[in-house]
Amino acid sequence: MPQYRLYYSPGACSLAAHIAFEELGVACEPIRVVIAEGQNQTAEYLAINPRGRVPALVIREGGREQVLTELSAILIYLAQTYPAAGLLPLDDTLPFVRMVEWMSWLGSSMHAGGVRTVLRPDRFISDPAAAEAVKTRGTENVRIGFADIESRLHGRTWALGEHYSMVDAYLLVFFRWGNRIGLPMRTDYPHYTRIMDAVRARPAVQRAIAHEGIQIE
Amino acid sequence: MPQYRLYYSPGACSLAAHIAFEELGVACEPIRVVIAEGQNQTAEYLAINPRGRVPALVIREGGREQVLTELSAILIYLAQTYPAAGLLPLDDTLPFVRMVEWMSWLGSSMHAGGVRTVLRPDRFISDPAAAEAVKTRGTENVRIGFADIESRLHGRTWALGEHYSMVDAYLLVFFRWGNRIGLPMRTDYPHYTRIMDAVRARPAVQRAIAHEGIQIE
Repeated sequence: MPQYRLYYSPGACSLAAHIAFEELGVACEPIRVVIAEGQNQTAEYLAINPRGRVPALVIREGGREQVLTELSAILIYLAQTYPAAGLLPLDDTLPFVRMVEWMSWLGSSMHAGGVRTVLRPDRFISDPAAAEAVKTRGTENVRIGFADIESRLHGRTWALGEHYSMVDAYLLVFFRWGNRIGLPMRTDYPHYTRIMDAVRARPAVQRAIAHEGIQIE
Repeated sequence: MPQYRLYYSPGACSLAAHIAFEELGVACEPIRVVIAEGQNQTAEYLAINPRGRVPALVIREGGREQVLTELSAILIYLAQTYPAAGLLPLDDTLPFVRMVEWMSWLGSSMHAGGVRTVLRPDRFISDPAAAEAVKTRGTENVRIGFADIESRLHGRTWALGEHYSMVDAYLLVFFRWGNRIGLPMRTDYPHYTRIMDAVRARPAVQRAIAHEGIQIE
């Protein structure tokens, strides 16, 4: 059985990987790397993930360590390694690629090209005086994305249909970010809110949130 | 056997899906949606993909049509549906998630939060006078990404190791973009160039490039 260390920053997208371990009940040593304090840019952390991002999962097996990065890769790894838990739909191609479609869109359009421009405008423009304009435009883009999520969740029990999955856990990260950047999530996105309330009611999710010491409105 | 329509824009990341169909020899009707002419924002195209992005794959089977978006989802769908062609490593978890790790990082950090800020700065800041500053900073970020790709490709035959895969086809899209935004790809990134030359030598890749009517330096 492999041993795991999960590098996470409180409330970052690594939260979904943290939730996955709690759902699985698989032992994992969570290691805190607080991005807001620059702990992802220390020589020590860059030796683990040269890209300085979280999550990073260290997989120790047979005396050998491997580092796996990118949330979607980590979630698929966990789902395939512990298939009985049903973290993701693995059995058929179309449900599987619908899951990949969600994860890819969330990671690219919503995170890298969306929320990140609002939370870290300094990465997109060097002049601090111009950062506010990047933030404003980014917030508009993120609202379009949330409207998209809301319309897709309309009438659904969970993001992928009848079964809770790690896509729901990933959506919780964005829901929290939406609140943090000042968007009225509960009033503007009722279907999204309904599913997120169901996610937060899960004991595994509560344990991950409590461990990270974060709040979700 | 399903029938396919692939919506692509010349030289966009849809090129990798176009290459996949050529590699497979599976019939597909490629439909041109030129982003530079705004054809991705017409009512007709938004009815197919409300997000206005390419690629979009319409899968027609048993009288029913489904639309699948996001390049990584389309490539995994094709690889799983036609496994004999070996488009992606499907047999074991770790090689599979290493592929997902590449696709996810390319789609998020390199595309949505990287090259797109250089090619489409207007999506990140509303003031046209400030767009140049977004482009400048974006170019710096993209160069860091290319240096990362170069170091990972050092000593490799293909991106994933011994076997050509659709990750190499996706990397070709970024290589072309690098040239387009004025970076000296061939001189600065010799390992990347070597693998891209091998990709371009493939007849299937040449057919896709010729069909899209694009040039790759």
